[in-house]
Amino acid sequence: MKVIVDVAIIPLGVGLSLSKYVAECEKIFKDAGLKSTLHANGTNIEGEWDEVFNAIKKCHEQLHQMGVPRISTNVRIGTRTDREQTMEEKIKSVQEKIL
Amino acid sequence: MKVIVDVAIIPLGVGLSLSKYVAECEKIFKDAGLKSTLHANGTNIEGEWDEVFNAIKKCHEQLHQMGVPRISTNVRIGTRTDREQTMEEKIKSVQEKIL
Amino acid sequence: MKVIVDVAIIPLGVGLSLSKYVAECEKIFKDAGLKSTLHANGTNIEGEWDEVFNAIKKCHEQLHQMGVPRISTNVRIGTRTDREQTMEEKIKSVQEKIL
Amino acid sequence: MKVIVDVAIIPLGVGLSLSKYVAECEKIFKDAGLKSTLHANGTNIEGEWDEVFNAIKKCHEQLHQMGVPRISTNVRIGTRTDREQTMEEKIKSVQEKIL
Repeated sequence: MKVIVDVAIIPLGVGLSLSKYVAECEKIFKDAGLKSTLHANGTNIEGEWDEVFNAIKKCHEQLHQMGVPRISTNVRIGTRTDREQTMEEKIKSVQEKIL
Repeated sequence: MKVIVDVAIIPLGVGLSLSKYVAECEKIFKDAGLKSTLHANGTNIEGEWDEVFNAIKKCHEQLHQMGVPRISTNVRIGTRTDREQTMEEKIKSVQEKIL
Repeated sequence: MKVIVDVAIIPLGVGLSLSKYVAECEKIFKDAGLKSTLHANGTNIEGEWDEVFNAIKKCHEQLHQMGVPRISTNVRIGTRTDREQTMEEKIKSVQEKIL
Repeated sequence: MKVIVDVAIIPLGVGLSLSKYVAECEKIFKDAGLKSTLHANGTNIEGEWDEVFNAIKKCHEQLHQMGVPRISTNVRIGTRTDREQTMEEKIKSVQEKIL
């Protein structure tokens, strides 16, 4: 089942500078061969459900191994059967209606 | 890896009364043997990562089979290695500090 | 405009025990005269849009005053014009379909 | 109080094509003079708390006026007092650590 998600991973108990942990997750998504786009409040990912959620799980496991004692993650998940739609098409369909 | 999640599953394209679909997901969580608590904006679930996310995936699959063409889900995920904490303990630790 | 929200407020940079900060927010909701219910991953609140979001803003201001340097909050917001529905009615409409 | 949010607004009861409603919200953010960036699962916005949340409220009001009977929105909210950080700086601080 194809899925488009938006994942925001927040490490707790390791101070205020979280970017190195977010960068670690970006590498995990890339290594998993997933199409992902970083934005200011999370990362959009497109792929098969199991591959996407295995990668998110791996982020939690990896950050815990890096010494992060607690993690709070928020994920937006979208699936549809009416038609295939890519992340770019979602954005384009909105932008066309703004101009 | 143990996880506590809060999942809000929103079926799209099937009108405004969503409760029968939410009820279907509650049955899936119960059938999976997961500890879950329904609240006004989602369902809190406690269990092993794979079992919890397999159940959420099954909700998407089941709702699509019921004819829901598009689903938008929001999940809050918490994992920690510093100590074990149940859903009840999370609530109790706050309530004790309110009184 | 009436709204039902589910707010999860996560203080960053103050260690792992977050309950005293969550308790502080519970007091702010109560002092604002808002109907709120604590659950394991957030707090459900029912009320007028401005009162609810003023209270959430006050939580951020108050926690920053308590020394929290960074806050990450997730809010689920529901509004509807087809009919009035309370938090209890939302839960009841699902529970009736589970049995 | 400065805030960076990520808002995903989902109209219910108006079929599956949601882009015209998302486009309406993009216009509201632009008209409010807010710095906003559309992405595949929401819109990142940077500004003063009251201006940002007034604009989100206006989106709900406007969509209801367009005939949307029910709306479900998810918002990620970030505030910090340790330092000023723009949306671009958040992204850059991660990208630097990926290469």
